[in-house]
Amino acid sequence: MAEKIRVTVWHEYRHEKKNKTVAELYPDGMHAVMKAAIEEHLGSRVSVRTATLDEPEHGLTEAVLAETDVLTWWGHSAHGEVRDEIVDRVQRRVLEGMGLVVLHSGHYAKVFKRLMGTTCSLRWREAAERERLWCVNPGHPIADGLSDEYFELDHTEMYGELFDIPAPDELVFISWFEGGEVFRSGCCWTRGKGRIFYFRPGHETFPIYYDANVRRVLANGVAYVAPHSSAPVRIKAINAKDPLSPIQSTHEADPSLHR
Amino acid sequence: MAEKIRVTVWHEYRHEKKNKTVAELYPDGMHAVMKAAIEEHLGSRVSVRTATLDEPEHGLTEAVLAETDVLTWWGHSAHGEVRDEIVDRVQRRVLEGMGLVVLHSGHYAKVFKRLMGTTCSLRWREAAERERLWCVNPGHPIADGLSDEYFELDHTEMYGELFDIPAPDELVFISWFEGGEVFRSGCCWTRGKGRIFYFRPGHETFPIYYDANVRRVLANGVAYVAPHSSAPVRIKAINAKDPLSPIQSTHEADPSLHR
Amino acid sequence: MAEKIRVTVWHEYRHEKKNKTVAELYPDGMHAVMKAAIEEHLGSRVSVRTATLDEPEHGLTEAVLAETDVLTWWGHSAHGEVRDEIVDRVQRRVLEGMGLVVLHSGHYAKVFKRLMGTTCSLRWREAAERERLWCVNPGHPIADGLSDEYFELDHTEMYGELFDIPAPDELVFISWFEGGEVFRSGCCWTRGKGRIFYFRPGHETFPIYYDANVRRVLANGVAYVAPHSSAPVRIKAINAKDPLSPIQSTHEADPSLHR
Amino acid sequence: MAEKIRVTVWHEYRHEKKNKTVAELYPDGMHAVMKAAIEEHLGSRVSVRTATLDEPEHGLTEAVLAETDVLTWWGHSAHGEVRDEIVDRVQRRVLEGMGLVVLHSGHYAKVFKRLMGTTCSLRWREAAERERLWCVNPGHPIADGLSDEYFELDHTEMYGELFDIPAPDELVFISWFEGGEVFRSGCCWTRGKGRIFYFRPGHETFPIYYDANVRRVLANGVAYVAPHSSAPVRIKAINAKDPLSPIQSTHEADPSLHR
Repeated sequence: MAEKIRVTVWHEYRHEKKNKTVAELYPDGMHAVMKAAIEEHLGSRVSVRTATLDEPEHGLTEAVLAETDVLTWWGHSAHGEVRDEIVDRVQRRVLEGMGLVVLHSGHYAKVFKRLMGTTCSLRWREAAERERLWCVNPGHPIADGLSDEYFELDHTEMYGELFDIPAPDELVFISWFEGGEVFRSGCCWTRGKGRIFYFRPGHETFPIYYDANVRRVLANGVAYVAPHSSAPVRIKAINAKDPLSPIQSTHEADPSLHR
Repeated sequence: MAEKIRVTVWHEYRHEKKNKTVAELYPDGMHAVMKAAIEEHLGSRVSVRTATLDEPEHGLTEAVLAETDVLTWWGHSAHGEVRDEIVDRVQRRVLEGMGLVVLHSGHYAKVFKRLMGTTCSLRWREAAERERLWCVNPGHPIADGLSDEYFELDHTEMYGELFDIPAPDELVFISWFEGGEVFRSGCCWTRGKGRIFYFRPGHETFPIYYDANVRRVLANGVAYVAPHSSAPVRIKAINAKDPLSPIQSTHEADPSLHR
Repeated sequence: MAEKIRVTVWHEYRHEKKNKTVAELYPDGMHAVMKAAIEEHLGSRVSVRTATLDEPEHGLTEAVLAETDVLTWWGHSAHGEVRDEIVDRVQRRVLEGMGLVVLHSGHYAKVFKRLMGTTCSLRWREAAERERLWCVNPGHPIADGLSDEYFELDHTEMYGELFDIPAPDELVFISWFEGGEVFRSGCCWTRGKGRIFYFRPGHETFPIYYDANVRRVLANGVAYVAPHSSAPVRIKAINAKDPLSPIQSTHEADPSLHR
Repeated sequence: MAEKIRVTVWHEYRHEKKNKTVAELYPDGMHAVMKAAIEEHLGSRVSVRTATLDEPEHGLTEAVLAETDVLTWWGHSAHGEVRDEIVDRVQRRVLEGMGLVVLHSGHYAKVFKRLMGTTCSLRWREAAERERLWCVNPGHPIADGLSDEYFELDHTEMYGELFDIPAPDELVFISWFEGGEVFRSGCCWTRGKGRIFYFRPGHETFPIYYDANVRRVLANGVAYVAPHSSAPVRIKAINAKDPLSPIQSTHEADPSLHR
């Protein structure tokens, strides 16, 4: 694929405005740091823009989505403010082939729950404890470039099982937490023609998106869910409403069976 | 599990009232024939009731669902009339562990689309052609008792790929159609604690639910998605909203990181 | 299925003869305790026999296997002594539909590696540390009857990722270890017509098979992998060697293409 | 990944020497045509060599495999002549991360059966009938560039279910055959760190590898299974034999439990 992957980094962008710790960690917003992380690793392969909740249409107009190959999503405190028509729009684009990377507390985003069909609930604890992410699929593109079998984050919010998601099509990372829990931290699904990657780390009060391994996985995830098709999107089947002509001739039905 | 599987056969029950062919094939409604098929094969292992769209709350009150282990669903012309609050209720029960068997045109039922997260669209053609269902998972309980590698239906409506569903956790049948299509006709998923089985055959103008193999698969499907748990339903994790105490002690976080 | 599940508990049965701790924990061998655990939970639904490495044909004659619905396998120090023709025989029976439960160090059993196609290697440490098994599929029959979201073993040998197995068809448990690792501890696969369940706990120097939760999972696993078919085993396709007649007529090929 | 994908096209290369039709279709051997197809689509992204059964070590020396990122495999009449030590070598390389594309009658290749753990048997009929390959995963990279929901081959050998394989991690194509069968024709698995793609078409007496769609899928498959890792291959876990030190400190075991 010669063209660039067009990425839109979506961010709720509320914590930075209210919480001093978050504002100091991410003076230009977490989206700015995520954008930089993606560009750092994918360089000329991507063009990245950002969009935030408080922009008109949450920054996700039809035009923006039509020009987006991969959407990344971070939300936490304002999931309920995301308008349903925008959720519909994002879901439709994923089914048409747009990649989606859902981060951390985005597990409760409307569009993620919509695509999963489950509650997406989980256990959690905010205790600044250690997380160790083990790779259970070391040949997977999302694990590309990690230098060892696991990587660690010294201070994280804990997410624990049961994570109420459909069994992932591909499971890449399992987290170990100091406090006693495990979590499926890197999960891939296909829905329609689109790929989805959920990646757990990302709590706003820790400098997670400055971590070298997290940045790499984020960029790998973007590359992985990018649509591969160079052909026009084939949405005929998805919208099929009209009866089809048989490709082969068929035998005559008994008319008494079917009037 | 000593107790009976409590089955509710849900049926839209509209075609029988409007179409003479359907009324002649199913004088007491398709739900009566489905109920009989389930009882024929599962006998004393089940207690089966029915519910239909035009009953109050579509026959699916909280009380009925609380006493339902497996719900089967047939709908076609009136998916839009199913009230969203009832859809919410059914979805929630599936996630808590109730089994769901979705039949034929039920692929477009609101609750199926909700649980799948996709459009669930497909190709179709009403030509009374031959369908041959190949078993691709012969050790699966849903294929139990079928006497050969495939079975046939002489006159069916065609459903063809692309069937826009998440890749099934288990694929049991693939259909061949005389007119040139294939279809994933027997598919299983788990969502939350509930199992879901989609089974393709069932067009209302053909005597599909009198077919011996279809009846067996329907009953096998009911038995397969029935919850196995003899323990009380554990919904704590699904509704978890409060932070957990660490099970292990954790080290102290740097307070500058987390105010 | 009215008939009993015929279970053969296979055990290497060497440690008990050489190691005092093991002999004291399992005076009649681990197989005796496993047999009792299965009978405790499945009662009249099963008939259980045992077989051990040092019996003729390792106790796994054609006759024994022909009468076995589920085989459980524990081995550790003598995998290499299991004769290849017996491995062939067990593999063939699994593909025909016999269930297989592989326990703990059985991950390196020849027949398990044969069915997986991978090295089945893993990390390990013998430090008597705590293991906490989290259920990530709480509606699964193998988790039936467990009273909470996880259960613990106070002193276990550690097994850690990367566990070099094909991605399980169903993942039921993930273990957390005190020392910092995670492990996919309860995994299901289908191979041919047979189901396979791998369950991690079971180190010989700890009283693992006296643990109430382990015993329940072992019994649940036996019930889960038991063949469901009441019909004669259909092995025609598996052994298909002769060309088939077309079921439909086919058009004439251009003879220049195919001489 | 800046470097080229190093592809080795392996071919049994016997039919061309014995059968006039095959020799006329493939005067330089099928491997020459496969090589050209891969180069046609992947151009400067690949460097392709070939290897055949009758070369020393079947052309698959340690040195060749060490320099191979993706191996494609076509065999039919001489599977039994492939030496087991070469099979071991290829299997090991796949587990280390080498991609493998198995074509048509290669379903019975020793190395494919080894990696699958099943018989890999299937039904077949040589009747020059029509095959229609439906894409059931249209967002998958292997379907990239196909212009419609299916493509056809006018004259093929039939392969029918039951195809005795582990359920694919990803199912891309399902074939419809004029004579009445279906087949899972495009299947992906991961084993160890390596990806495997099985693609059904390819009978030697038909000009299958001149078909534009087949050529594209073959090339897409090569690109898909190519290892993505830019890091050195991490084989430590795969060969782990030594106990690990705990990463966290663990509590003291009761010495009476563990001597």
